[in-house]
Amino acid sequence: MHFTYVCNDCGKTFTTDKVIYQCPDCAKENDDLHFPKGNLIVTYDRDELKELGKKPHVTFYDFFPYDVPDKDSYPVGNTPVVRPKRLIGKYGTPGLFFKMDSVLPSGSFKDRASQLVAAQALAHGEKKVCLASTGNAGAAMSCAGAAYGLDIVLFVPETAPVNKLMQSVLYGATVVPVKGTYDDAFKLSIAYTKHFGGINRNTAYNPMTIEGKKSVSIELFEQLGRRVPDVVYVPVGDGCIISGVIKGFIDLKEAGLTTRLPHVVCVQSKQSNAISQAFKTGKCDAIAHATTKADSISVENPASGRMAVRYLKECDGWTVEVDDSEIFKGQMELVRESGTFVEPAAACAWAGFVKDHDHLVKSYGKDVSACVLLTGIGFKDMAAFQGEVSMPKPIENSVEAVLERFKD
Amino acid sequence: MHFTYVCNDCGKTFTTDKVIYQCPDCAKENDDLHFPKGNLIVTYDRDELKELGKKPHVTFYDFFPYDVPDKDSYPVGNTPVVRPKRLIGKYGTPGLFFKMDSVLPSGSFKDRASQLVAAQALAHGEKKVCLASTGNAGAAMSCAGAAYGLDIVLFVPETAPVNKLMQSVLYGATVVPVKGTYDDAFKLSIAYTKHFGGINRNTAYNPMTIEGKKSVSIELFEQLGRRVPDVVYVPVGDGCIISGVIKGFIDLKEAGLTTRLPHVVCVQSKQSNAISQAFKTGKCDAIAHATTKADSISVENPASGRMAVRYLKECDGWTVEVDDSEIFKGQMELVRESGTFVEPAAACAWAGFVKDHDHLVKSYGKDVSACVLLTGIGFKDMAAFQGEVSMPKPIENSVEAVLERFKD
Repeated sequence: MHFTYVCNDCGKTFTTDKVIYQCPDCAKENDDLHFPKGNLIVTYDRDELKELGKKPHVTFYDFFPYDVPDKDSYPVGNTPVVRPKRLIGKYGTPGLFFKMDSVLPSGSFKDRASQLVAAQALAHGEKKVCLASTGNAGAAMSCAGAAYGLDIVLFVPETAPVNKLMQSVLYGATVVPVKGTYDDAFKLSIAYTKHFGGINRNTAYNPMTIEGKKSVSIELFEQLGRRVPDVVYVPVGDGCIISGVIKGFIDLKEAGLTTRLPHVVCVQSKQSNAISQAFKTGKCDAIAHATTKADSISVENPASGRMAVRYLKECDGWTVEVDDSEIFKGQMELVRESGTFVEPAAACAWAGFVKDHDHLVKSYGKDVSACVLLTGIGFKDMAAFQGEVSMPKPIENSVEAVLERFKD
Repeated sequence: MHFTYVCNDCGKTFTTDKVIYQCPDCAKENDDLHFPKGNLIVTYDRDELKELGKKPHVTFYDFFPYDVPDKDSYPVGNTPVVRPKRLIGKYGTPGLFFKMDSVLPSGSFKDRASQLVAAQALAHGEKKVCLASTGNAGAAMSCAGAAYGLDIVLFVPETAPVNKLMQSVLYGATVVPVKGTYDDAFKLSIAYTKHFGGINRNTAYNPMTIEGKKSVSIELFEQLGRRVPDVVYVPVGDGCIISGVIKGFIDLKEAGLTTRLPHVVCVQSKQSNAISQAFKTGKCDAIAHATTKADSISVENPASGRMAVRYLKECDGWTVEVDDSEIFKGQMELVRESGTFVEPAAACAWAGFVKDHDHLVKSYGKDVSACVLLTGIGFKDMAAFQGEVSMPKPIENSVEAVLERFKD
């Protein structure tokens, strides 16, 4: 589709065939802000969207600004809708379901953004994509790079754990540890792109990251038989995923495919709650001293914070804050009582549902259609459980020992 | 569908509503055999199969002996068909694709068998499922148990690495380390079921394990627009997966949905090649001293060896043996050049394709439709790469350091 960019903060429109990243006027202030400004929103012609709304079926690719070539080479999307029988029974909410994006190729939701950024690079004849990341975004872009033959340059703080970078190294990315913080790595990655060209894929900085993430909502709409859920619980760190999720529903609404937006719920760790606080106070200036152990959502300066707060209001959403202990309890509840093994950041969304449950049922009834977005797989960090979960003692190799072990 | 059991070895038919495991006559010899006898094949009425063949679309659930309840609770199936653009170009085979079963809920193909065994348990009113396993089968059954609320008892040799058992412990299985070998754990698990009831899910021993695995072939048939591929490369250890894959195609043929079977290729490590040797020599008595590092296919006494050899002949298949070095090279080629990160056992199938490539193209032309079955995800064992893949050195936090790092 034809598209333009609109600044999330000043509303200025930019129409260009070139790759652009931020509103130059608004971004000027960013050195002094906890919530950066100037993020751009990809925007389509309303008539084109309305035409799209007449199709009997749509895919998220129909709603993209770039054609994605060789889709089957990097299978993004079509993730399961899981209806967890036991948890549905336990909480008495038959409309509860998981959108299980943890099974995407690199094991996280970030593949959705990386696929569109790869398409952007290919459309502009670029071979190189650069970004800063300590985890899933870097792995996802590196995975896309391996699939499409793009060169990925990944700046990381030198203190990032080797385990988290290993995956990107395996995909063949050029990983550059920096003697500095994540913010330092972020700045150097932008300097890299300025000097050496290619595409910069920093989250929220490149508007295609949020635009790619919207795909989950369009996919879900078709999976649910052309309906949107009533409520969607999303784990939130920098605000990029939740912005993308809401943007997807907004595009569906503008296409005339839904008359209402779901209530999207921003679930944060109390130990990294900048966006939740900004939503509550109405001021995008909260300083979150991010200490949560759910590393994928541990964020001090939310790159998409302003957009997330604005979109949350637009969809009549709300926020829930949970303790780290509730996140880890939720992670174990998911794996033990539904066979769904996700990383702590994803379990945060579930912990949010649990905490919000009484309010949810009271407000919308027990039959509410409630989606919990599960954003990252648990397998990547098995070592984290080694101290937590103990192995039972061995028994002798005899039937008698078995009988003894299992006597009442 | 109505079903009976047929012994793979003597051909005797067993019609019963009860749970049965092996042909009692043939299984008597097993203490003295390297290739156990007496496995049962689940068999349907031909007329019922023909009726099924008239449906415009089928799912593998149509071809199952038990109804699977609450399918969305444990989302097995619908795994991606990946057409890896770069590897297709490299090998000049446009019909190459991966069936990516590594994204199933517990991260391996074994979820297919575990779902049907869970359905079997529920149909018979049993709450307990017992098995012996050191890896993926145990994790898959434990995952199914968590999803459906079944109690899983898992016997393992005490020497099994903690990392491999952690996943089952997380799902809430009762894990029982045994001071003995895998064969000892296997025998104790059968003793457990005899004493305490419930279902035994030992691979091949319970015919539903092979029957569940056939689902991949029926699913693939529909995904390819109601066609079967020309050739399918399958990684082989105990022969259970390849037996299930071929059984699925046989059922499709008996339903009249395909007139031909694909050539299924048995790919084994040279360091665990019992079935390949049996196929070549025509004698199911090979002793494989299994030393391959691809642990999921390291097997000395192949539980489904006799069935695999018989089915391989029936589908006009062949075998390929690869070195461990070829497996690990293949694993890196997959991750680097397609973004597909699988465990070594799965990479074995790919290594088989690479090794067989010239023969394949010469025999069937470069446009041959060739499927490589990828059976297990790589994330579970990230630690394995820590010695293999080195991290680059950090740079100073300055733009100058970036320019220096990337100068020609």
